[in-house]
Amino acid sequence: MGEVLTATRVGNFLAALERALANGDAAGAAGLFGTECYWRDLAALSWNIHTAEGREAVIALLSATMATAKLGGFRLETAGETTDGGEEGWFTFETATGRGRGHVKLVDGRGFSLLTALQELKGFEEKQGATRSEGVEWGARKGRVTWKEQREREIAALGHTEQPFVLIVGGGQGGIALAARLRRLEVPTIVIDKLPRPGDAWRSRYKSLCLHDAVWYDHLPYLPFPAHWPVYTPKDQIGDWLEMYTNIMQLNFWGGTECVASKYDEASGEWEVQVLRDGVAHTLRAKHLVLATGMSGVPNMPRLPGMDGFAGTITHSSNHPGGPGWEGKHCIIVGANNSAHDIAVDLWEHEAASVTMIQRSSTMVARAETLRATGDRGPYCEPAAQRGLSTDQADLIVAATPYAVQPRVQTPIAERMQQTDADFYARLRAVGFKLDFGEDGSGLGQKYLRRGSGYYIDVGGSELVADGRIALRSGTEVAGFGASGVTLGSGETLPADLVVFATGYGSMNGWAAQLISQEVADRVGKCWGLGSNTTYDPGPWEGELRNMWKPTQQPGLWFHGGNLAQARHYSRYLALQLKARLEGVPTPVYALPPVRHPG
Amino acid sequence: MGEVLTATRVGNFLAALERALANGDAAGAAGLFGTECYWRDLAALSWNIHTAEGREAVIALLSATMATAKLGGFRLETAGETTDGGEEGWFTFETATGRGRGHVKLVDGRGFSLLTALQELKGFEEKQGATRSEGVEWGARKGRVTWKEQREREIAALGHTEQPFVLIVGGGQGGIALAARLRRLEVPTIVIDKLPRPGDAWRSRYKSLCLHDAVWYDHLPYLPFPAHWPVYTPKDQIGDWLEMYTNIMQLNFWGGTECVASKYDEASGEWEVQVLRDGVAHTLRAKHLVLATGMSGVPNMPRLPGMDGFAGTITHSSNHPGGPGWEGKHCIIVGANNSAHDIAVDLWEHEAASVTMIQRSSTMVARAETLRATGDRGPYCEPAAQRGLSTDQADLIVAATPYAVQPRVQTPIAERMQQTDADFYARLRAVGFKLDFGEDGSGLGQKYLRRGSGYYIDVGGSELVADGRIALRSGTEVAGFGASGVTLGSGETLPADLVVFATGYGSMNGWAAQLISQEVADRVGKCWGLGSNTTYDPGPWEGELRNMWKPTQQPGLWFHGGNLAQARHYSRYLALQLKARLEGVPTPVYALPPVRHPG
Repeated sequence: MGEVLTATRVGNFLAALERALANGDAAGAAGLFGTECYWRDLAALSWNIHTAEGREAVIALLSATMATAKLGGFRLETAGETTDGGEEGWFTFETATGRGRGHVKLVDGRGFSLLTALQELKGFEEKQGATRSEGVEWGARKGRVTWKEQREREIAALGHTEQPFVLIVGGGQGGIALAARLRRLEVPTIVIDKLPRPGDAWRSRYKSLCLHDAVWYDHLPYLPFPAHWPVYTPKDQIGDWLEMYTNIMQLNFWGGTECVASKYDEASGEWEVQVLRDGVAHTLRAKHLVLATGMSGVPNMPRLPGMDGFAGTITHSSNHPGGPGWEGKHCIIVGANNSAHDIAVDLWEHEAASVTMIQRSSTMVARAETLRATGDRGPYCEPAAQRGLSTDQADLIVAATPYAVQPRVQTPIAERMQQTDADFYARLRAVGFKLDFGEDGSGLGQKYLRRGSGYYIDVGGSELVADGRIALRSGTEVAGFGASGVTLGSGETLPADLVVFATGYGSMNGWAAQLISQEVADRVGKCWGLGSNTTYDPGPWEGELRNMWKPTQQPGLWFHGGNLAQARHYSRYLALQLKARLEGVPTPVYALPPVRHPG
Repeated sequence: MGEVLTATRVGNFLAALERALANGDAAGAAGLFGTECYWRDLAALSWNIHTAEGREAVIALLSATMATAKLGGFRLETAGETTDGGEEGWFTFETATGRGRGHVKLVDGRGFSLLTALQELKGFEEKQGATRSEGVEWGARKGRVTWKEQREREIAALGHTEQPFVLIVGGGQGGIALAARLRRLEVPTIVIDKLPRPGDAWRSRYKSLCLHDAVWYDHLPYLPFPAHWPVYTPKDQIGDWLEMYTNIMQLNFWGGTECVASKYDEASGEWEVQVLRDGVAHTLRAKHLVLATGMSGVPNMPRLPGMDGFAGTITHSSNHPGGPGWEGKHCIIVGANNSAHDIAVDLWEHEAASVTMIQRSSTMVARAETLRATGDRGPYCEPAAQRGLSTDQADLIVAATPYAVQPRVQTPIAERMQQTDADFYARLRAVGFKLDFGEDGSGLGQKYLRRGSGYYIDVGGSELVADGRIALRSGTEVAGFGASGVTLGSGETLPADLVVFATGYGSMNGWAAQLISQEVADRVGKCWGLGSNTTYDPGPWEGELRNMWKPTQQPGLWFHGGNLAQARHYSRYLALQLKARLEGVPTPVYALPPVRHPG
């Protein structure tokens, strides 16, 4: 126990916890917590991403992991802070194999929430700062291999004469951030993407797209955006950043490479992955396969009567390039979330004859300005950056609130937003736009975690809807197509030259079905979602995002994705889990959940 | 006067100085200084880079600038620190047109050195942090121009239908760092370079080259290297970084573009510059022309008897690609500085039959490890970075010591180095290698500033010289060539297949002669050097580097260059001087020195 621990209540709690752990007393440790309590572990004890909820669950977690993990060495980093709800503090810790950072929050003097987040593996720390490489090779040596030659040799060998330990399918921000962490941990990795250049997934989207999250939330690991980077990065600029990042971080990025088929050999514990690289067939082998194909799965595209006879264009939002070319045309957007609004605005700006939005069910709308002002991402903002709060620390602050507790924190914020923007919402309701703020009123963040859909961050589209420049049909859907238009469920017919289905995506395990097999997809089950028992997120409660960044029921198969912040933060734990497996560090997985929603 | 000023001696000094300035009392202000005193001004008062040395010079500086510059608003940033030689402190200040940072050092309670460094122009501050752009354009708007379209329009227009305000010739680190600052200040700028891609000047050098300065010294503005970047960056890696940086900073970089001729139209105050872009003739016009062609000028290449009849290869070090291809060959390197050693080692590593170094005059050798250990760049090191010392602050710390004072600070360091590495130097002397530590013993830094040459930072070459694997001939030179070898001044003949002249470069104004005219080169005179009255740096004493980063005798012509640290730091002042001229901010130049060394 470090001498930094002072006689604060937080310090006393940690000291008592450490004693109980040292004595192998799981019940004693759990007894330090209140009746409602959470222990969130990010790969430190559980080699999983797991939240133990309640004392019994804490006892179970500790009983199973205590002897091998050897959690201890707590050192309080801060003196312990009194906050609204209690007292809290940050600490560092060690396990048998790693070092981590943690957060504890006490309510009425008892443990309410505890975070243990693995930060590095002992003996396999990233080289940086004082331990960075020299670059120059000192002395004179025949057969010297320069940096360039070494890199060229690696490129020539990896995937050919040598196989990667990890193969990442999908080279968006998720695949790239993970590959960067694996690179720094010296884990041989290839990222493949069907588009030619890093960043192309962004470049190929509709032209007006900008990131919906502000810059402070979006940094990649290791190389933050400079201080002049715009708040909401335009899509081509983030594309260029990802390309630069891939080069500078020396990632093995195979562009123009499509995954055709993959199968797992149980005996060798190895994936065999068939790819087409610039059209040429190639076989890759890897111990671990990461699907980083987007937290959204395969596009949802309905089959509707009359589609084949339709004279116009039908496309999914993910394939719609934008407004140019649709001047004077009748355009219909099915859906009322982010992409639907952005695409509708873009078509209106490009002088489409009409733009009609078909809202099938209610949408959560949040004005981007209000989101920023209400500071619902408090640790990610300019004032926080000016105070010296690092992005890593901001990530841990967010991670320290268990998922189960988030709705009660976020509901008041969503309520304030409804008051602040009451006029705005009234104008939307007046034209028939159906609004919600989550089934339990907990707002946007929870919708994102539960279903990854159902919201629009308004940067101008709602104004067009409210004043009718974007026409709205609500509570109905496209029932069928004629040659020159669509028929709605309401019986109304609308002329149409273009119909964009902004109807979202399936679960990520749709990618597993497509790239591996339906059998493996079923074995793994649904990805994303918390088990909140709300629309698209069936129960039971899981306490963590299903199958994300952690072991699945399919050995060697991992899922990585989410927004830039998740890609940044959770890539750390996924990379450490993979590095541990490369180096033979024991990784006994605790509480791999059964699959309740296959297929 | 800010209330932060406390009753320290530094605070009292600044308060008294501010009172004297407010009263227009130049003599009173100068009277606060000691007999030996320095006021170093970086574009804040003088619109020049100028050091006033002694009280009379301070009176002259203030008398000329006080009324218009309106220097004042001193706020001490630190409480005032007591150091070995006296007391010192950092402060901020304002002028009529700008804001700056300053440093004062008192000895025996009187002003010894004062730095005033312009940091930004009022009303033309760089947008960053809280003032950064939104990126997304809020609301719906027909005719919206996306980030990509805007950039494409700029590229299509600049240099064609619109002309840049600044044209930078040379796209190495100097040109790129300056272009980045000008971009952030919204000064329309084009950088041209004869090589195709940014970074190619590094890529095309001999293969074993790494930066000779450590990473903490080498950061570019705005986008520092990540924490894992190697200490001494290999040449291809710095090449890639410069290319990435150019793209991410959105610089208008015209690769494959050679400057053929330039002339200045006095009437319009404009340069007309003929270029060949990918072989196609093109005319550019700009108000200001910056030569960033390397602080070294045109390569020095002797004409010697018999050269034409020589059967082997003769090249200058700047064109030598490296060791491969010279296996089993006899190689001669003329010169004994950095490039000469690196090239000799590389040839030896590639199994040349013999490698002989011809040392014409003495060399300062410093072991890279010792340089790092003695901390002669104290503010640029990992511990400083860990303490939170920013690179900008490190630059100002270095700038706060006037050039005239530097030798007395650096001589003891050079002396310690001779003691520490006494055995090493003895071994070099034993094989006849001629050593020096500067004519006044002040070491490497001064040699660099005075003549930009005359030293080797040893990363392994000296070992090969000391043990004879690189043969040495010292105190002689190549007198002439035969068909299969060279004759030395000593009369000795040596067989040779390759002769590399690592004989350095002329003054930067050689570029002005080549790219503009001999007349303009003569009008501007010698660049670089302090007037130390040592070899290659004739007197009289100037107190600053000649013609660098400041107005010259040729209107609209500027010189920019140096190592990465100088390119970073001084690009700030050059960019601010150019921005002020773009915006019509008055820039009365004080003390433009007469030209004493033309041609």
